[in-house]
Amino acid sequence: MILGAVEAGGTKFVCALGDEQGNIRERAVFPTTTPDETMGRVIDFFRPHNVEAIGIGSFGPVDLRPDSPTYGHITSTPKQAWANFDVVGTLKQAFPVPIGFDTDVNAAALGEQRWGAAQGLDSCLYMTVGTGIGVGAVVEGRLLHGLLHPEMGHMFVRRHPDDAFAGICPYHGDCLEGMASGPAIERRWGKKGAELADRKEVWELEAFYLAQAIANYVLILSPKKVIVGGGVMKQLSILPLVRQRVQELLNGYVQHEAVLENIGEYIVSPGLGDNAGVAGALALAAEQAMRGGRRP
Amino acid sequence: MILGAVEAGGTKFVCALGDEQGNIRERAVFPTTTPDETMGRVIDFFRPHNVEAIGIGSFGPVDLRPDSPTYGHITSTPKQAWANFDVVGTLKQAFPVPIGFDTDVNAAALGEQRWGAAQGLDSCLYMTVGTGIGVGAVVEGRLLHGLLHPEMGHMFVRRHPDDAFAGICPYHGDCLEGMASGPAIERRWGKKGAELADRKEVWELEAFYLAQAIANYVLILSPKKVIVGGGVMKQLSILPLVRQRVQELLNGYVQHEAVLENIGEYIVSPGLGDNAGVAGALALAAEQAMRGGRRP
Repeated sequence: MILGAVEAGGTKFVCALGDEQGNIRERAVFPTTTPDETMGRVIDFFRPHNVEAIGIGSFGPVDLRPDSPTYGHITSTPKQAWANFDVVGTLKQAFPVPIGFDTDVNAAALGEQRWGAAQGLDSCLYMTVGTGIGVGAVVEGRLLHGLLHPEMGHMFVRRHPDDAFAGICPYHGDCLEGMASGPAIERRWGKKGAELADRKEVWELEAFYLAQAIANYVLILSPKKVIVGGGVMKQLSILPLVRQRVQELLNGYVQHEAVLENIGEYIVSPGLGDNAGVAGALALAAEQAMRGGRRP
Repeated sequence: MILGAVEAGGTKFVCALGDEQGNIRERAVFPTTTPDETMGRVIDFFRPHNVEAIGIGSFGPVDLRPDSPTYGHITSTPKQAWANFDVVGTLKQAFPVPIGFDTDVNAAALGEQRWGAAQGLDSCLYMTVGTGIGVGAVVEGRLLHGLLHPEMGHMFVRRHPDDAFAGICPYHGDCLEGMASGPAIERRWGKKGAELADRKEVWELEAFYLAQAIANYVLILSPKKVIVGGGVMKQLSILPLVRQRVQELLNGYVQHEAVLENIGEYIVSPGLGDNAGVAGALALAAEQAMRGGRRP
């Protein structure tokens, strides 16, 4: 089966051709500009190929409610040009094949569960810490949705007692994303994370917030694997700090060897590296092909 | 079908006879004492009847892992006599029928989803605020489990700036349960909640913590209905305060009419009142009967 995959991010789009085993044959990356131009490039990428289904993992918020008139749209994003844009409809017009659609982070969680760090498990959490903080989850074998899709990056967190930074979330100020995303790091310290690699206090504070979020996710969702990726996590010193602080916070309460003894194998980097999202989009395409195009 | 239901709580046990439609025919309540005495009373209650399956919603932590040698046990509870007690095995010896087993709060969430406030929805959250704070959830149509079962009551919350109370959780001090459970209210104010009904500041502070927890659950799980019960919620003034503060915290970010406009129908009291748990245990029994006794 030839499947198409789109990881539609706020800064870049990744398109791929692949199959239902997660093999990626061809891959292209281009910047997110206007919807017309960007979707034009997506369509040009797939045009020469006979894709049988397409999967999309998209930045959001997106409308995933099967019975909604705006199903398949990006909804209230601050990226004005993309607000209320019909991603699924636009692709469907060009390619009348089954199209799977979910959030970028749910796609990445699915990719990691099928072929990455959470292979063989029926639950996992995928967190990306970059321009924003997004989290997707597989729970009881299924991608997690509900009233809408989760927005775990906006969780309310305790402020570090020595941290006077106001936070940059336009909705919540000092929620997790407002305190610990890449742009929050840059605003707080006056430099990008990559330029702060040797500043220990930067990564200790970052770990304080990320660990608190992960501890709460563990208490609330009890995932079997926690996968953390995104630009900020390229700082190699941070993951061990996060693990240590999660253990300290939970303080022996979650009595499972994964947390108590093997936390190095419990909170991990993506097994698929930067391909988690696009591999997950292949999985969404394959699922949708099997469903014959019916919405979930 | 004659089904047995047990709501095994830390302070009291509720036993019931009923059917797969959630009808309760007979009901008995007795205090939780020693395992021998308490389970003896459970067995005496069911003995005269030909129950075809039994469902148990139990206080915990409990072992729900189907492949675990201690499946069906209460595990590390501070109630010494019950630690490592084999609830399912004890009942199975007396009644060799299919036995369903889950946490008390997961059972209540299931009861409310089948026959209560979340009827017809494929997701809901059930929160009880009493001696402890426990939360169960139905997600994508299934009860939520993972590495273990969720322990959402121990979520880390922001402290109110005027609140100097240390918190009473033996593991985490000032986690949600440590700050906002019934015993926390009593310790902080020197009186039981029922005696503090007219103290506005008590319920405003309580709502500060509960709303924060619920806002985070909404961001993380996106439930289609949030049901809040338990002894503390018998203070009628508190639910409207909680709703208002959840809206303030989310600040328009979760763009769904349930949160923006109809929050009075989104965050609600249990539709089954005090029978949510025992009705859910009936549902667990019915499910287990259909599975022929195989573990999930």
